[in-house]
Parts: sequence; C-alpha cells; structure tokens
Amino acid sequence: MTVMNNLSFILNRSHDVEFAERPIPKLSSPYNVLVGIDYTGICGSDVHYWDHGAIGHFVVRDPMVLGHESAGTVVEVGSEVETLKPGDRVALEPGYPCRRCEDCLAGHYNLCHKMVFAATPPHDGTLTGFWSAPHDFCYKLPDHVSRREGALIEPLAVAVHIARQGQITPGASVVVMGAGPVGLLCAAVSKAFGASKVVSIDIVQSKLDFARGFAATHTYLYQRIPAEDNAQAIIAKCGLGKGADVVIDASGAESSIQASLHVVRMGGVYVQGGMGKADITFPIMGLCQKEVTAKGSFRYGAGDFKLAVELVANGKVNIKQLITRVVPFEQAEEAFKAAKGGDVIKILIAGPNEGVGEFLKA
Amino acid sequence: MTVMNNLSFILNRSHDVEFAERPIPKLSSPYNVLVGIDYTGICGSDVHYWDHGAIGHFVVRDPMVLGHESAGTVVEVGSEVETLKPGDRVALEPGYPCRRCEDCLAGHYNLCHKMVFAATPPHDGTLTGFWSAPHDFCYKLPDHVSRREGALIEPLAVAVHIARQGQITPGASVVVMGAGPVGLLCAAVSKAFGASKVVSIDIVQSKLDFARGFAATHTYLYQRIPAEDNAQAIIAKCGLGKGADVVIDASGAESSIQASLHVVRMGGVYVQGGMGKADITFPIMGLCQKEVTAKGSFRYGAGDFKLAVELVANGKVNIKQLITRVVPFEQAEEAFKAAKGGDVIKILIAGPNEGVGEFLKA
Amino acid sequence: MTVMNNLSFILNRSHDVEFAERPIPKLSSPYNVLVGIDYTGICGSDVHYWDHGAIGHFVVRDPMVLGHESAGTVVEVGSEVETLKPGDRVALEPGYPCRRCEDCLAGHYNLCHKMVFAATPPHDGTLTGFWSAPHDFCYKLPDHVSRREGALIEPLAVAVHIARQGQITPGASVVVMGAGPVGLLCAAVSKAFGASKVVSIDIVQSKLDFARGFAATHTYLYQRIPAEDNAQAIIAKCGLGKGADVVIDASGAESSIQASLHVVRMGGVYVQGGMGKADITFPIMGLCQKEVTAKGSFRYGAGDFKLAVELVANGKVNIKQLITRVVPFEQAEEAFKAAKGGDVIKILIAGPNEGVGEFLKA
Amino acid sequence: MTVMNNLSFILNRSHDVEFAERPIPKLSSPYNVLVGIDYTGICGSDVHYWDHGAIGHFVVRDPMVLGHESAGTVVEVGSEVETLKPGDRVALEPGYPCRRCEDCLAGHYNLCHKMVFAATPPHDGTLTGFWSAPHDFCYKLPDHVSRREGALIEPLAVAVHIARQGQITPGASVVVMGAGPVGLLCAAVSKAFGASKVVSIDIVQSKLDFARGFAATHTYLYQRIPAEDNAQAIIAKCGLGKGADVVIDASGAESSIQASLHVVRMGGVYVQGGMGKADITFPIMGLCQKEVTAKGSFRYGAGDFKLAVELVANGKVNIKQLITRVVPFEQAEEAFKAAKGGDVIKILIAGPNEGVGEFLKA
Repeated sequence: MTVMNNLSFILNRSHDVEFAERPIPKLSSPYNVLVGIDYTGICGSDVHYWDHGAIGHFVVRDPMVLGHESAGTVVEVGSEVETLKPGDRVALEPGYPCRRCEDCLAGHYNLCHKMVFAATPPHDGTLTGFWSAPHDFCYKLPDHVSRREGALIEPLAVAVHIARQGQITPGASVVVMGAGPVGLLCAAVSKAFGASKVVSIDIVQSKLDFARGFAATHTYLYQRIPAEDNAQAIIAKCGLGKGADVVIDASGAESSIQASLHVVRMGGVYVQGGMGKADITFPIMGLCQKEVTAKGSFRYGAGDFKLAVELVANGKVNIKQLITRVVPFEQAEEAFKAAKGGDVIKILIAGPNEGVGEFLKA
Repeated sequence: MTVMNNLSFILNRSHDVEFAERPIPKLSSPYNVLVGIDYTGICGSDVHYWDHGAIGHFVVRDPMVLGHESAGTVVEVGSEVETLKPGDRVALEPGYPCRRCEDCLAGHYNLCHKMVFAATPPHDGTLTGFWSAPHDFCYKLPDHVSRREGALIEPLAVAVHIARQGQITPGASVVVMGAGPVGLLCAAVSKAFGASKVVSIDIVQSKLDFARGFAATHTYLYQRIPAEDNAQAIIAKCGLGKGADVVIDASGAESSIQASLHVVRMGGVYVQGGMGKADITFPIMGLCQKEVTAKGSFRYGAGDFKLAVELVANGKVNIKQLITRVVPFEQAEEAFKAAKGGDVIKILIAGPNEGVGEFLKA
Repeated sequence: MTVMNNLSFILNRSHDVEFAERPIPKLSSPYNVLVGIDYTGICGSDVHYWDHGAIGHFVVRDPMVLGHESAGTVVEVGSEVETLKPGDRVALEPGYPCRRCEDCLAGHYNLCHKMVFAATPPHDGTLTGFWSAPHDFCYKLPDHVSRREGALIEPLAVAVHIARQGQITPGASVVVMGAGPVGLLCAAVSKAFGASKVVSIDIVQSKLDFARGFAATHTYLYQRIPAEDNAQAIIAKCGLGKGADVVIDASGAESSIQASLHVVRMGGVYVQGGMGKADITFPIMGLCQKEVTAKGSFRYGAGDFKLAVELVANGKVNIKQLITRVVPFEQAEEAFKAAKGGDVIKILIAGPNEGVGEFLKA
Repeated sequence: MTVMNNLSFILNRSHDVEFAERPIPKLSSPYNVLVGIDYTGICGSDVHYWDHGAIGHFVVRDPMVLGHESAGTVVEVGSEVETLKPGDRVALEPGYPCRRCEDCLAGHYNLCHKMVFAATPPHDGTLTGFWSAPHDFCYKLPDHVSRREGALIEPLAVAVHIARQGQITPGASVVVMGAGPVGLLCAAVSKAFGASKVVSIDIVQSKLDFARGFAATHTYLYQRIPAEDNAQAIIAKCGLGKGADVVIDASGAESSIQASLHVVRMGGVYVQGGMGKADITFPIMGLCQKEVTAKGSFRYGAGDFKLAVELVANGKVNIKQLITRVVPFEQAEEAFKAAKGGDVIKILIAGPNEGVGEFLKA
C-alpha cells in the first residue's frame, strides 16, 4: 500500500464478482468523516447475496460493493466534527437513518423506513478503500483495541441488541440456539450481562466445543428428535428447572425456534435473532399459555455499538478468538468461498489500502 | 328461593350433565369468605368442557361443577377478614394461587404452578349455591353496579390483562381480531385506555355491527383471501399508515394470527389472547424484521379485577350491553346449548339461591 | 394585514420591550418550512424574562424576540419536505435538537445539550411574523382544530410529557399541585389517560372552581398549615386511602413539593413539573422509606406534540376553555402585564400577519 | 454447644441489654421451618436501636431481641415444606409480609403495611438460638458458600435491591456515596451488574482504600467544600463526562445527597439507599431540569435474596472480605460496641447453639 486508490469488491450478480476502482467518496456533509477501511469481516448476509444475488425482497439489480463489518482509520473530517480527528481508529456502524421520522425521533432508528444500509441493494458496502460516514456512526477504538477487533464490533453490536431485546438481567439463565458467530456472540454478551447459566446449542459438536471455551457454561448437541423432546432434554441436562428465563434463537432453523418456545419458562422471554424461512410451524399455544414475551431483533440501535466497544475494551468479550484468518483484499472471493464452506468462524479481509490512515497521520 | 341449599350443575362427561346437591363449603381459612352465588356467565371454555370433556391436557375424569364467571353476595366472613362483611356484593376471581412460589412473590400469580382454578379439572366451578374464596379475591361492587354486571367482571378482567400485556397507551391504534365476548371487551378496554383507533375484525357482519355500537371506531369484515391481503386491506381501509401500534388476537384462528403479524407496525406489539390450535403456520420473519413484541396473555393477575370493576363503575365500559339473556339455574343446560349455538353474546345463569345474600342480610 | 412584514416583539432588557422589523427568515435547510405565525400564547417563562431579564443561568444579554407557544400556517416548504404544503395549519414545537448526540439518538432529544429553544437566550422566539422550522417539528392541525387551539398545543405537550413521566395508567389516582395553566392541563391529561381520581390543589379558590369545571374530580384549597397536615387532609378529603398513585407538582412551591411526598402512596410516583426555588427543604426520608419514584419533567419529547394534537382533536381535552382573551400584536406588552397580573388563564397574541398563510393559499 | 437452648440477646432500653432464655419457637404454620441460628451480622439499625432505643417512629417499648442478618441450619420443617430439609444451611430473609394486600399480590411485598420484620419493634430479632420462618424466606446456600458468608446475604440483598432500583445496565457509570458495608456492597453489585465505572466516595481514606481492593474502579475523598464543587471534582477526576448514569447514596448525609443530584447526568438515575435526617436541603431544580429519576430503596423484595446468594456462589461478590471478626454469642455486647466504634466492617456473632443444625443432622 502506498498509493491511495479506491479498489472495491463488487457483486454484479450471483457468483459474478469483480474488483474495480470506484471514485473516492467526498464528504457529503460537514458532519461526516472519511475513513480508510482497514479490515472487513464477512457476514452471512454478504455470503447470501454473493450466492443467490438476493435476500427476500432485496435483489441485487445493479453492481453492488459488498461488505458492512468494518473498521478503519479516519483520514478526513468535516467542518462540524468535534469528536474525531484524522488518525483515529474507528469501528463503523454501516446503516444511516433519516433522523427525522417518528421512529428516529423516538430512539428506534433501526426501524427507520429510509435507512441507508451498506451492502443492502441498492446501497454499496464497505469492501472498498474509503468510506464516508456521519461522525456519530463511527466509534473510536481505545488504544488497546486493534483494528482487527474493530471489524468485529458490528456483529457484536448485533448480539448486544439481541441481549437487550431479551432483557437479560444478572442471574438469568439463557439458552442460545446456534453457535455460529452471532450465536457465539450472544452467548458472550449474555455472560457479560450477568447471566448465571449460558447454554449454547448446535447440531455440530465442534462448534459446541468452541462455544464452551468462549462463553457457554453448558452446551447441548441438538438431536434429530422432535423439538419438544429436545427442549425437555435441554432443561433436564442443564438444570433449568421450570425452563430458561431467556431463549435466543440465533439459528433461524424451524426446529430450533419450536424448541425455543418449549424451553422458555412461564413468563420468560424469547428473542428471534436469526433469519431463516419466512413462515414456520410455530407453537402458538405455548406462547399464549406460558405468557411468553417474544421479540424480534433487527440490526442494532442507540448505544449498541458503544457498549460493544466497551465490552471488548474491558475484556468482557474476547472477540479476538473469533478471527480464524485474515486475507489480503485480492483474496476477497476466496474468503467468501471459505465463509460459505463453514470451516471458519470469521475471516477478515484487509482493505485495499490497509494502514493508509496511520500512514497519512504519520 | 327460600331454603338454603347447594344445588350444583355438574359435568360427568362430555354432554352428560346433572344437577345435584353438594355440601355447602366451610371456610377453610380465617381469611376466606363464603359467597352466595347470584349470577354466572358462560365462558367458551365451559362450553368446550361440556362439548368435548377436555381442553388440551385438562381432562374431566371425575364429575366437575362447571362455571367460573360469577358474582354473589357475602354470607359469612372468616375471623381475619377486615374488608368485607355479610351482605357485600362481590365479583369473584375464580383462581387461587399458592402465594409462596417465585412467580407469586414476584407479582405474577397467574403463572403459579399450583393455581387452583374453578372449573378446570380436577377443581369444581361456581355453578353452585355457595362458594368459599380468599377475601382478597372477592371484589366489592359499588352500589350502582349490579350483580349481573358483576358476573361479567371476570371476562372483562381477561380483557384488561390483555390490554395491559399490549401496553396500550393513549393515542394508540389498536386492531382486535375477533368480535366475540373477549374481543368486544378488548375493544372496549382499548378505548378506555385511550386508544384513538379501535378496529374490530370478524367474519360475521352482525358481530361487527354490534362492535361498532359497543366500542369499535372501525370495523373490517375478514375475507376468504390470504392473511397478508386481509392485512393490507385493513391498513388501507382504517388509515393505519405504517400499521397498527397494537394488535390483539382474540380469535385463536390461524389466519387471524397471521394477519396480526402483517397488520402490526414496525416496533409494534401483538398479543395472543385467544386459544385455538396448538401449532400454526406463523410469519416468523415478520416478527424478526419488524422487531415486533409478541406476548401471550393468560388469565389475569394483580390489579386486573380491581380495574375491571372500576371501568364498569365509572361508565367507561358499558358491560350491560353484552347480556343477551338471564335464565334460572334449572335451565343451565339450555343456556350451554344457546351459548354453543352462538346467537347470543352472554347468557347469565342465576344461582340456585340467587338473592340469598341480600335475604340473609335483611 | 395585507403586506408581508416581519414585525417582532423584542425584549431588550427587563421591562424594556420594543416592536421592530426583523428580516423574514430563509429556509436554512431543504427539510425546513416557513410558517406565518397566527397566534402565540404567553408562558410563565416569557413573563419571567420580561420581568427579570433572566431565568437562572439564562440571561438576556442581547435583544431577544419573546414567545414560544405558537401556531401558524405554512407559507413555504423546502425541497425535501413531503408531509406539509403551503396552507397547512400547524402547531409549532419550538425547540430544535442536534439529532446527533447520544441523547438525541436514544430518543431523549429534550435532553440534548445543543438544543436551540425559542425565546431562551440567545435564541429568538416566535412573537414575530414568520418562523422557519424543521418540518418534523411542525404538527398539522386537523380541520376542526382551530389555529387558536393550536397555540395551546405547546403547553398541552408539557402536560403530556409530565403525565408520561408520571406513568399514569387507567384507574390511577392523581393529585396535581397547582391550578395554573400547566396544572390544569396536567389534570386534563391525567383524566384523558384514564385516571379515576384527579385532585386539583391550589391556594386560590377561584382557580379550583375553574379546575372542577375543566377536569378535576376533586379539589382541595391548600391551607397555611404544615405540608404534612395538608397532605393528611388531602388524603382524608379525597378518599385516597394509603395515598395517591401519582402526584404532580405543577406549582414549584416548596410547601407543595413537601406535601407531594407526603401525599404519594408507598411505591407511588411524584413528578416535579414546575420550577421554583433551586433548593428547598425536602422530606428525603419519605422518598426512601416509601420507595417513591421521583421524576423531573423537562419540556417535551418524541410523540408529545402528536399526542397533544390528538387529545384536542378527539375532544379529550377541551383546550379552548383556557383562552381568556385574544389581543392584536400591537397589544403584546399589555398582554404580558395581564399575564403577570394573574387574572387570566391564557392570553393569545395574534401574529402581526395573522391569516397570511390562508391568504397566500387563496 | 451440646444442650439445645434458646439464649437470646435482648435490648431492654437504650444501652441496657441482657442475655436470657426464651422459649424455642414452634412451627406456627405447616409452611414454616425451624432454623438453628449459626451467625448473625450487626447492622447499623441494630446499633441505632441499642444506642438510642428507637429509630424514628419505631420505639423499643418492651424488651426486644436484636439482630436480623443471619444464616443458620434447618432443624425442622413443616408438613407442607417441599424444598428444604433438616440440615440444609440457609440465609434468612428476616421480614414476613401478609401475602394478601395489593402490594403483596403485585410483587412489592417490601411495601406491605403488615410486614413483620425482625428486630423492628415490637418484633423480636434473630440474635437467638432458633428461628421459625416461612420456608420461602429461607434461601439454601450452595455447598461451597459458608454459613458465615450466609449471614451477609441480607446486607447484600439490600445492595441488590438498590442496584435494581437504579436500573444499572452493562456499561453504566455508577457513583456510590459512602463506603460503609452497604456502600461497599452497592459498589460490588454495580460491578457485577456490568457497570464499567464504579466510583466509591467517602470522607475516610482508609475506607476508600478498602473499596478499591473490593470493587471500586475509582475513588474520591469527599472534601469539606460545597456539594456542587465536590460534584464537579468527581466528574473531572473520574472522567464522567456529562455526569454519572447512576448515583447511589448509601450515606444518608445531606451533602452527599446534594452532590448526588449534581453528579448524575441528564436523564440519569439517583437512588437513595441510606437513611439519615428526615428533611434536608435538596437541589430540586436539578432534579427537574435534568429530568432525573430519583428512587427510594426500602429493604428488599422478590428475587433479591436469590440473586444475592448467586452473586456470592459464582464469585461475583467476594463477600468474605467484609468479615472483620467473628465473636462468640456471649460477646454480643462487645460486638455492638466495636460496630459502633467503626473500626470494623462487619462483625459476626456466632449463635448460642452455632453448629446445632449440622450436629442434629449427623
């Protein structure tokens, strides 16, 4: 890296990607900053766009830059920016709300109908050289938090939002369905929130082994038996008594969701944090008779990134453990293939100008 | 009525009922009162037991007195009772928790695992002459609230609990699926809670006509089209913009529940207040992406009966309108047939000693 | 009114006012609208600035246009405004937050440290001809709500915010200290929120008489006796049993605040809604032992204006009753004198171009 | 200890104590258990009764057994007790509500007007041999939690309740005024709840030194300067930016309470957890303008003891550190003198039959 460019990793259509130069973005507002992207993680949604060219109603019609889990270094700040300066290392929140609708004003900006979200058609993502963002959506990393860790603040913020939706309080018992990256982070955040039992559940034993070393106090290998039977086994094996206080589904799998409703205690909370089929068979009577509170969780909102940075900074979530490998920008497609393959937890892709921010600073 | 007896209306098994004398209950605790039953309404669950001999896991194995929606007059009070005296007219809360489990101590006694609930096997109900109850589960009726109205406090408390689960606040838009007794009462309570729009929905036009005169500001005749299409029509017809703030399903019907998730706005609340099939096809992606809060509602809890009495007392809910007919105790079986037939809203059955409380007082 | 001007009512220093032309404001953002001011109410804070030239740390150092309770008619809209058009009649929310700080993003924009608030030094107010405001802080009035009523939406929003801070729920008993405009509106909003008892308290009998006709179910003439004795008398006279569920102090008077803590029940809520002395003698032991929740209420926030408009539109608050008199713009100073005199509830001052919006529309 | 007796430590009047045999209590309910008292801590309120013969309205008129911070061993269980058996080691919750009033039913039993609380006149306390208690107010200690630690569960439950009142969430900054036992425990619980900054404040440096080793991330030696100046110094020294998210006053001192209101951020929470003067000079304007939520905290309620046991069991609160000394029952009066002297944190008094429970079991 020596010359500033803006090489970008672009999805034309399903499985058709290219690297191309895009113009370096201008600061479109005096409140914005320009960030040199250092590292970007790959999310399941990125893989899904790459693999299928669409997620639900969101269809990639025009070439779109992929990526939205990024950290970088500030290279320029707008005239109204007081809290950041060139050289600051930041985690990027990649979705920008209108700030003017009722949801925004009420503090629920993740529900904003005018949200502009990175790598969600038709908006470009962060697998590029430079990124312009409102300064209040860039979170300064403390000195002892690395830029690689910074790239994982985004998925950690997803987990923070889920845990907040789950109203996890100290002493709670929490069951997390799924031990992929989001499930693992939900387990870690649950523990950081003071949960006394954190049960990780998956159909792959090796993932459970990792979960145990990462955050889970208990694990359960999900069986090919009815959801209700799995639920009973989970309760019995993990000593959950009348059921778990909180159940988080981070799998999106139909059977997991059904089991979630059977595992949660009367008056407990179940959060749907993962996406799968649009419609499933659901034990609605259980919801009603046990007076369960079921909540969706969508992206992240006010304070989630800030807390995510803090959890890493104070050592409550050892996010480094999730980074399986870091590859140079040119190997972005290989990284996507590996991510789809599933034998990695998180691959990071270095930005095309990785380190440019510090370079410019010096 | 002149001689005190304790004639009871007993279900032996499906469609096999009898009238028989049962012993007049003793006060089993110094905190209990003995109440002469004046009027009892018929609930859908009563009809279901009578019709099928069971509801889910609850099976009528031994003869069981039916009924749990009752008002009566205090005829005797235990030595520790300070707040009631013979002659007081009361609405009865018909389920008695243990007061000692975690749920009870935390104020969620409706979730108590040791709940003793009237007319839920193996516990007898209130279609009888006298009933012994803890004094704090008997709610004194103000002078201008009749004993007949008192018998409907129980279903009104169901609706109050649902509305509280729904976090209905002034200015909210509320959609209520189903215009049976509970749906109608949910509409009325929503209005009393300050909802600015209350939409009643049913598949029967005459029920909607009644709803309009009772509490609904809007109505919608549910069509035999996909749930999502019904949802769009409801939103358009009733001017709900981005969707309803709160949706209450008081029908238990699969299509209604699906439509509920499509009608509720992003960040809104959906409450499942009616029972139907144990498992249904459910739009889980909608719950997740719209970050909906879904809540079950099970019976009623602390403060619900008190508020129900107040809503009737101060005229916010005109509960009298729901009483289609009052029949003498001897016609209890006919009343059940009429209730099943569905051409009535609420039939009340007079107690075998109706008026005994006032008689004894005088 | 025929020629567009921008005559403004300006406070130079304590008791030194003048009328002067100020430039008609430009739309400083494509999201702003220009509003012709039709009517403006006088707030206690306006009177205080006029009378003392300062409120606490806020000192009028440069000439400042007074006024912030206004309604008007849209005369121009920015290019990004979709929800308003010229001719629309609107109530104005007169404080504009930064939209970018943590408080703003979290939905508490009334706590924004960068708030620009009308008629709070050094910011000009709305006693002028034209006013430029972000479109989302202008609330369209339904056809049947007049522009005069619109000018009172601001104080009503203050009361809505207080009532929300007080967590008033249906059936609650609410005591409101003070029967000035804010106290009266708090009583009305409490009732609209479903309070079953609303007690207005003041030291002036005529105010209580008005309160009774406006919203209060009970009144109490505050006596020159210790606060605790007043509290006991209030509880006894109004049948509050163990105390009121919610107490709102809208007086700012030391004795009232003390009485508030003695009137509220164990576990109840007390809201400080009025300003008086910075420091007072306060019954802190009562707060602690009764486990009271005490809350400040500062201006208004997300949804408050919207709900205020709705309460007027659906007839729940008869705000017209509060308008004692309407005077032409030239009599602004006389209006301030009358407002200070206290023999009026609300005086409205017509804008210098009152009606210009409708005129331009036609 | 070989013979079962029921020696008790009795306060006749201020500074007049005696040891006397009292009858061993009977199980007054089939839901009760009889507990042999093993260890009892001394609370500030015990010392206050001993020193002054009264606390506020509570006056010691008849001889009263002191003590209410106890752990013991079950020696007998009533016929309806399912969850405990002889030999179980338990922490005692020493206050028993009526279970029937509105507050009890709503889950706020600490507000019960009929509360029977140990060592609060006219009710005897736990500095005795045997104690009869409802089984659901006895909390089984895990094997690795000692009976000495068990005696400190009560003050820890006080701190848990305060922290819950303070709505402490992960990442919060918490300031605790006072580093006595309750203040120290509040600091520890705040940390266990995920607070990222915990500031302990006292006027005694040695207490701050202890606090730092126990739970505080920051400390501040309170100065003899105005409260507002102390507040500014705290904010500056501890990097609290716009103020602390939560402030807990565990001192009861007037200046501390004033400083609490100046230290808390806009929209923050202040909890009054300590008792001092009934009336103080209070910065009410700050409460109002900063929209602070102020809460009292009174004893403890549902779930507090359970969580306290868990925090000790899982090592989040190292409660052992607080035990300065353990003395035999005969030295109870000396222990009170030492507790008043203030050079100890917690003294435990062994029960007259310490170990009887285990002895009987074996």
